[in-house]
Amino acid sequence: YSCKNTIHLQYVNGKKKKTIKNIHCLSVFIFLCLNSQGVRKSYREVIDVSWGDPHRAGVKPLSFVRQVLAACLYPQLMDGDKLMVDVKQRAQRLLETCAGGSVGSYSDTAGIPQIIQSVSEYILRRDGGVPCHPENIYITPGSQWALTVTNILKVLVNSEASPRTGVLIPVPCHSTTIVSLTALGAVAVPYYLSEERGWALEVEMLQQALDSAKGVCNPVALYIINPGNPAGNYVQSRKCIQEVIHFAAEKKLFLLADEVYQDCVYGKESEFVSYKRALAEIGAPLSDTVELASFHTASKGLMGECGLRAGYVELVNLDPAVMKYIDNLFSNSCPVLGQVALDVMVNPPQPGDPSYPLYLKHIRASLAENVRRVEEVINSFPSFSCQSLEGGAFAFPRVFLPPKAIEKAKAGLQPDTFYCMRLLEEAGLLFSPGTEYGQMEGTYHIRFCIMTPTDTMEEILKRLSTFHKQFMREFILFASATERETK
Amino acid sequence: YSCKNTIHLQYVNGKKKKTIKNIHCLSVFIFLCLNSQGVRKSYREVIDVSWGDPHRAGVKPLSFVRQVLAACLYPQLMDGDKLMVDVKQRAQRLLETCAGGSVGSYSDTAGIPQIIQSVSEYILRRDGGVPCHPENIYITPGSQWALTVTNILKVLVNSEASPRTGVLIPVPCHSTTIVSLTALGAVAVPYYLSEERGWALEVEMLQQALDSAKGVCNPVALYIINPGNPAGNYVQSRKCIQEVIHFAAEKKLFLLADEVYQDCVYGKESEFVSYKRALAEIGAPLSDTVELASFHTASKGLMGECGLRAGYVELVNLDPAVMKYIDNLFSNSCPVLGQVALDVMVNPPQPGDPSYPLYLKHIRASLAENVRRVEEVINSFPSFSCQSLEGGAFAFPRVFLPPKAIEKAKAGLQPDTFYCMRLLEEAGLLFSPGTEYGQMEGTYHIRFCIMTPTDTMEEILKRLSTFHKQFMREFILFASATERETK
Repeated sequence: YSCKNTIHLQYVNGKKKKTIKNIHCLSVFIFLCLNSQGVRKSYREVIDVSWGDPHRAGVKPLSFVRQVLAACLYPQLMDGDKLMVDVKQRAQRLLETCAGGSVGSYSDTAGIPQIIQSVSEYILRRDGGVPCHPENIYITPGSQWALTVTNILKVLVNSEASPRTGVLIPVPCHSTTIVSLTALGAVAVPYYLSEERGWALEVEMLQQALDSAKGVCNPVALYIINPGNPAGNYVQSRKCIQEVIHFAAEKKLFLLADEVYQDCVYGKESEFVSYKRALAEIGAPLSDTVELASFHTASKGLMGECGLRAGYVELVNLDPAVMKYIDNLFSNSCPVLGQVALDVMVNPPQPGDPSYPLYLKHIRASLAENVRRVEEVINSFPSFSCQSLEGGAFAFPRVFLPPKAIEKAKAGLQPDTFYCMRLLEEAGLLFSPGTEYGQMEGTYHIRFCIMTPTDTMEEILKRLSTFHKQFMREFILFASATERETK
Repeated sequence: YSCKNTIHLQYVNGKKKKTIKNIHCLSVFIFLCLNSQGVRKSYREVIDVSWGDPHRAGVKPLSFVRQVLAACLYPQLMDGDKLMVDVKQRAQRLLETCAGGSVGSYSDTAGIPQIIQSVSEYILRRDGGVPCHPENIYITPGSQWALTVTNILKVLVNSEASPRTGVLIPVPCHSTTIVSLTALGAVAVPYYLSEERGWALEVEMLQQALDSAKGVCNPVALYIINPGNPAGNYVQSRKCIQEVIHFAAEKKLFLLADEVYQDCVYGKESEFVSYKRALAEIGAPLSDTVELASFHTASKGLMGECGLRAGYVELVNLDPAVMKYIDNLFSNSCPVLGQVALDVMVNPPQPGDPSYPLYLKHIRASLAENVRRVEEVINSFPSFSCQSLEGGAFAFPRVFLPPKAIEKAKAGLQPDTFYCMRLLEEAGLLFSPGTEYGQMEGTYHIRFCIMTPTDTMEEILKRLSTFHKQFMREFILFASATERETK
């Protein structure tokens, strides 16, 4: 993520990475708020919604999570009456799972057994009773791709194979995905999501991708992201998932299911169905044979605790011999406080618990209003097209740029990068251009996180609207002026 | 570390790793406290001092650290008057360095710039003014070997080179070191530490190691651990370090200096001198050319916050082109709370600060008494020999086992593993055998962490003494009995 951010910065002001590295994002962007003559621009500070990092964008952490964490760190806090009884009970229970009763001791590399147990019970409830075995769950530190997915891929990818190992990945996709695959000696085989159908995954596109791989590599795995990311929006239906599973079974593909936004579904018709559940519902022989890894994290969703570096992976139908090897790969234990947060994520306060009313207030102050407003405002411009936001944390609208803007941009930049640069300079909004993630030839997109406080989102939409009108006017006027000149 | 622990468990009760994985160490060892008839053994619970994990062994965390962490997590704590003003100021200052003012947001992968700055100022003070450049410091997550050292080695080791790349490592050494080197395609070239001289590093042994590598591999790096570990004990003198640096310069070896126990020096004549400082004091041209990576962490020393997964590495004299590559390797950011702990580690409370008296009390209740008692009790047995404990966190005494014990052990186990198994079963003490770390042929050792509360160490020494007397008596009697029978 930081890498991505650095890329942003690089094209923003052309400074070298090394210089940029020590500059902190939001606060130091102030220098952008002055123009080259040192005159203040129209905005007071840059709003950075290029990351999936709700706290950075001003979302408040969930009190229950933070209270439990603070009590675990400093148990003396439990002596007074400042903390609710359910906070104290939770912290007490979690401390008892730590060696020496301290979150400062090492934990097993796979995670604290009682927390793994909590996670497995959560999965069982989520999946309507489909069995979940704690020994198939690994609690993992940090970012999905940098460690967790890579660990699984290490098992799947033979870097010396000829032809090379292929992994099907969606487009749009994070560039880190492709970098990681390449570093492992694998080939990324892109399958395009269907923007017109709200960034849907269509099995025909998977087949097209497989066809494209012929003679290039040997595809062994299929990476899917549900709810969608980086394009956001789409939540796969049970029918879609079952089709994908049948496809994977037929083609003998290992399923890598990135399900980190499973708690972020807003579409009225949408429902999160896990790949694990869909697989179980298909029944034997597929339910006993299709290999699946499902990822989740405390960094995403309602908690947004990116700084704690905690997630988990559940492995389904893996050969016991492979599991033993994977056991050795997960040699970096998750920070204990991250594990504590995972426990709260899978066991939030329930109705009747003393902390429930505040928790409910927090999660209700959530995204429904942002989703509605983003769709409304963006789609009010004919030069934008935003698919319905069913889930995930991002909007990824298409922008129809005037030909003159495209022409001007292409002197040095991709057109949507040019747009995002201008958006940053003139409106103080840090978005990502679609070109960073891959998009259909000739289409341009902008991407931004919708997990912000409501008033921040209003400010974002106001700045974006003002900027966009000016930008479009400039290049249409510029076009007219040029046309006049050439006449 | 967990891996090592699992190994212990494997030989303890012969159960499979998968079963063991979900059993938590100290608390569940209770089953060992019953003999095969279910009768209680002489101890109530197992004391596990096989790890360098002070909190696990009952050492209390430093209040100042925990208060700052709790305040960062739950800033409402700063509203009342429960926390000292310096705790609040520190937490406030650290929160201002976090994006969105939350420890839940992503940080730069190299670390939060202001915390890197704190670390660099600490190093500058520690080294008597030798310059330290923040851009040479990376804040890293988790265990040294699993990530940090491996990242540096990735740059040094060419897995396809012929002959292969060699790295000089001390013996005794953690087995994970050798595993990591092998996984990278490198060859571990052991140099033996001199037990008779208190586990000293002697340059002649480095030369012997280099000689042994001829025709086998091409050594490019020298890994040193100061203060010593896993053998503990030795703190290298300035003279020793300078000799090592001259040797490294002459042989063009990259120095990997594991200095994680730099705050743990107890020998009256001992002083920690960093490799960085010694290198600077040698002066040009060596001070500008010898390449060095120095490692430190919040897991060790007085803080012992293993669960937070935080450390740093400082790189000296690396080629800028290499630095750029390393920049990309450190792609896993350290948990933000771990970074907060590092800030406190390098900036503990000072005289005059409100938190100083309690802090001083904590750190005074430290290891001097344990060190004295361990040396006294262990060396009261002629069949033990414990080198003077100058620094580090471990005692690594040699044990002179009776021939009959060696003979009995060798049916299935290394003799010191056999001793440690019996020690665990009969006295409820979890130590490590020297055989896990490598030792001179025909010598046997046991290893245990000395970072425990004073009363725990008394209990450990009491159990060890009782067990050791019985064990020695058994095998000397056994010898007599066998001799009688054979007559």
